[in-house]
Amino acid sequence: MSERKRVCIIGAGPCGMAALCHFSQAASDVRPEVVCYEKQATWGGLWNFTWLTGTDEFGEPCHGGQYKHLWSNGPKECLEFPDYTFNDHFQCPIPSFPPRDALRDYLEGRWTNGDEDLRKYIKFTTVVRSVVYNDASQNFTVVSTDLQAGVSSTEVFSHVIVAVGIFNVPNKPYFDGIEKFEGRIMHSHDFRDAKEFKGQRLLVVGASYSAEDLALQCLKFGAKSVICTWRTKPMSFKWPIGIEERPLLQQLDNNMAYFKDGSSAEVDVIILCTGYRYAFPFLEDRLRLQSRLTMYPDNMYKATLWLGGGGGRLFYLGVEDQYFTFTMFETEALWCCRYIMGTISGEPKSEAEMRADADKWVSRRNGLKSPNDDIDFQADFIADMSSAVGYNPEEQKVADMLHKWKRDKVVDIVSYRAQSFRSVFSGIEAPLLKHRWWKVFDDSKDAFLKNTE
Amino acid sequence: MSERKRVCIIGAGPCGMAALCHFSQAASDVRPEVVCYEKQATWGGLWNFTWLTGTDEFGEPCHGGQYKHLWSNGPKECLEFPDYTFNDHFQCPIPSFPPRDALRDYLEGRWTNGDEDLRKYIKFTTVVRSVVYNDASQNFTVVSTDLQAGVSSTEVFSHVIVAVGIFNVPNKPYFDGIEKFEGRIMHSHDFRDAKEFKGQRLLVVGASYSAEDLALQCLKFGAKSVICTWRTKPMSFKWPIGIEERPLLQQLDNNMAYFKDGSSAEVDVIILCTGYRYAFPFLEDRLRLQSRLTMYPDNMYKATLWLGGGGGRLFYLGVEDQYFTFTMFETEALWCCRYIMGTISGEPKSEAEMRADADKWVSRRNGLKSPNDDIDFQADFIADMSSAVGYNPEEQKVADMLHKWKRDKVVDIVSYRAQSFRSVFSGIEAPLLKHRWWKVFDDSKDAFLKNTE
Repeated sequence: MSERKRVCIIGAGPCGMAALCHFSQAASDVRPEVVCYEKQATWGGLWNFTWLTGTDEFGEPCHGGQYKHLWSNGPKECLEFPDYTFNDHFQCPIPSFPPRDALRDYLEGRWTNGDEDLRKYIKFTTVVRSVVYNDASQNFTVVSTDLQAGVSSTEVFSHVIVAVGIFNVPNKPYFDGIEKFEGRIMHSHDFRDAKEFKGQRLLVVGASYSAEDLALQCLKFGAKSVICTWRTKPMSFKWPIGIEERPLLQQLDNNMAYFKDGSSAEVDVIILCTGYRYAFPFLEDRLRLQSRLTMYPDNMYKATLWLGGGGGRLFYLGVEDQYFTFTMFETEALWCCRYIMGTISGEPKSEAEMRADADKWVSRRNGLKSPNDDIDFQADFIADMSSAVGYNPEEQKVADMLHKWKRDKVVDIVSYRAQSFRSVFSGIEAPLLKHRWWKVFDDSKDAFLKNTE
Repeated sequence: MSERKRVCIIGAGPCGMAALCHFSQAASDVRPEVVCYEKQATWGGLWNFTWLTGTDEFGEPCHGGQYKHLWSNGPKECLEFPDYTFNDHFQCPIPSFPPRDALRDYLEGRWTNGDEDLRKYIKFTTVVRSVVYNDASQNFTVVSTDLQAGVSSTEVFSHVIVAVGIFNVPNKPYFDGIEKFEGRIMHSHDFRDAKEFKGQRLLVVGASYSAEDLALQCLKFGAKSVICTWRTKPMSFKWPIGIEERPLLQQLDNNMAYFKDGSSAEVDVIILCTGYRYAFPFLEDRLRLQSRLTMYPDNMYKATLWLGGGGGRLFYLGVEDQYFTFTMFETEALWCCRYIMGTISGEPKSEAEMRADADKWVSRRNGLKSPNDDIDFQADFIADMSSAVGYNPEEQKVADMLHKWKRDKVVDIVSYRAQSFRSVFSGIEAPLLKHRWWKVFDDSKDAFLKNTE
């Protein structure tokens, strides 16, 4: 008699929803029972905009860190679903860099496009408090709390998929004197509206995507000046007047910031664009991935199956640093669902085989030298996983677009969003924007759909 | 053979430290083993200032909500320890309304004044994740995580004292249109420096202590204007020019705020001074106090012993609305420690007797009609508890001071901190401030100690 499978998915963002979609489409004879727990009141994960910062309406750490004026910072053609293209959704060609509103709409289209209403699998405003693996019975005890009702439940599952994401718990480094800084200090996770910073002198700490985009956003919406400060290396884009880069902040003295090159500047606001922490406080220690952001975490088979504990029945989705985002989540989710259902040829492998496979990826990861290396690494990783489950998302063609996008940004960081890419699935070339990102202040989906040549 | 008692204290703020002090002073033959878990890196609870907002350096909800320029909003003579007076600590008379720096110093003096180093009982940067009562063995399983090391522990205790406070998890109501407000939105918990609001038009939502003090702070430090909006009733103080009160905010449209009286105003910042939520997410449901702020929570004997579950071995400290603060915590902690050690004459009582006693207080609570009623209620409550443990903190004399303080605020909200009170324990009359609060911009302890007539 085969075991009754019961799968717990934690999180209803792009990763968790991808898993729900795939389980929903599976044949009924292999399909397990599925329960998805979602802390927020709706699905969408990071793609839900919220006016709240810090803690949410229930006092839980706020999940979302989107800002009103966010536009995709990569071409939509690099995160397009092979089996649900942008053209399928919008029924017309749209430019390559949509605002958040349009992207969330696309995601939601995907999730409501199947035969089932996936909401029936999701327990909203329900936070998972504890996941413990029971060695003897080879299952998991999951404790969750319905935040609205204040009522907790304990349930048992054969498998757990952790899909809470890795970009929701801010990393906040200390700088000497910061506690006496006489201005606003915030993390980019709490950034909501660039207009708040009109006329102000900003210090942006960090040199990755958040730093880059927030510096530009704030200048666009009227900030007086922006200094970005870097630890490892500068972004070195051709910044518009008003943005400059300096080596790492050393200390603060009231409103004066002192940098490693001996320079100093008076600033009004500090925005920590210092990234996120891997945080899975609800998992028992041996189940908990404790990593820094990396292209392939240690101790994982296919960057998905956790080898540290949990009897090969605990999975993580989307825990690598990401270029491919939605399509990578999709591939991982499909692999994970099929692995659980036992429908992948050649799986399961022995632990030794899984570790050998993981070692191969980790060893290649250790030799990565540039963002372009990272892109190719991730394309190969997805291709490897895709081949096992027949998803075929044309990752090398997407990788080529990502390489071009990287070059476009070097050429002109202010207008890289004016570029157009061609869908590898529909073959449609994106129309050009009529008014460029820098000149557009209405970031709604409707305004975007009208803003084409 | 008597049971080996093992007590878990959760939180090393004024409440938890009061319990630690009392256990430390107890006779060795009745003294239980004690472990105190503290999420922060040091003791002090809400009295630790932090530059962080929202989530802390480990991604946990930030405990502290102090602002740089906070001064006590009540006379220090109303929160003075009978057995460790302000004069014992500072060795000289000091004015009645000290800044946070001086008050924290006083607390720390109390905690380091005994024979033992109380730090040895405290596990710092360790958060309690789960407390479950085991009916069969009549004890508690407590799971905690050392946030620095990322390592969890499970321990068993005979008693648990919840001392995490009730003013650390913000309550954030929604207002129509708030998600489109084009300015900064924050809760008072995230308020750090009034200088951030210089030249700005503030909307302060709320009509209690935070609203009152933040409105004044911001105006003092240069805010352009402050509108306070109330739900139940206005504060009705004689506000300085620049502060006004309006009935409840109805909706927001971009930067326009619309009020219940039909008026509207353009504002730059919304500060939610909307209080806090009772939040004990680590407690299993039947142990969890789920209440609104009240002078005496339901289901508690002596507002301290939880009657809802936990076999009469679960205690809360400081969970009522507070006028007496430190001295009330002290009285409750002493009662609680002695109750656990079995050294209170006439205790333990039967559950029926405890419920009858609780009903008496709840019934009186239900008839309270004014802040002055609340003050007298709390004085009587503390006197009742004190009489059982012989603490004698002269609560009626303190209540009289609180009545006067209430009147002082009505007379002049800007300068009530210029008043002087006399210690009921040392008999010392506080010296007057040389420069009044409104004119002082250096809020350090040192500046305060020099600022006397």
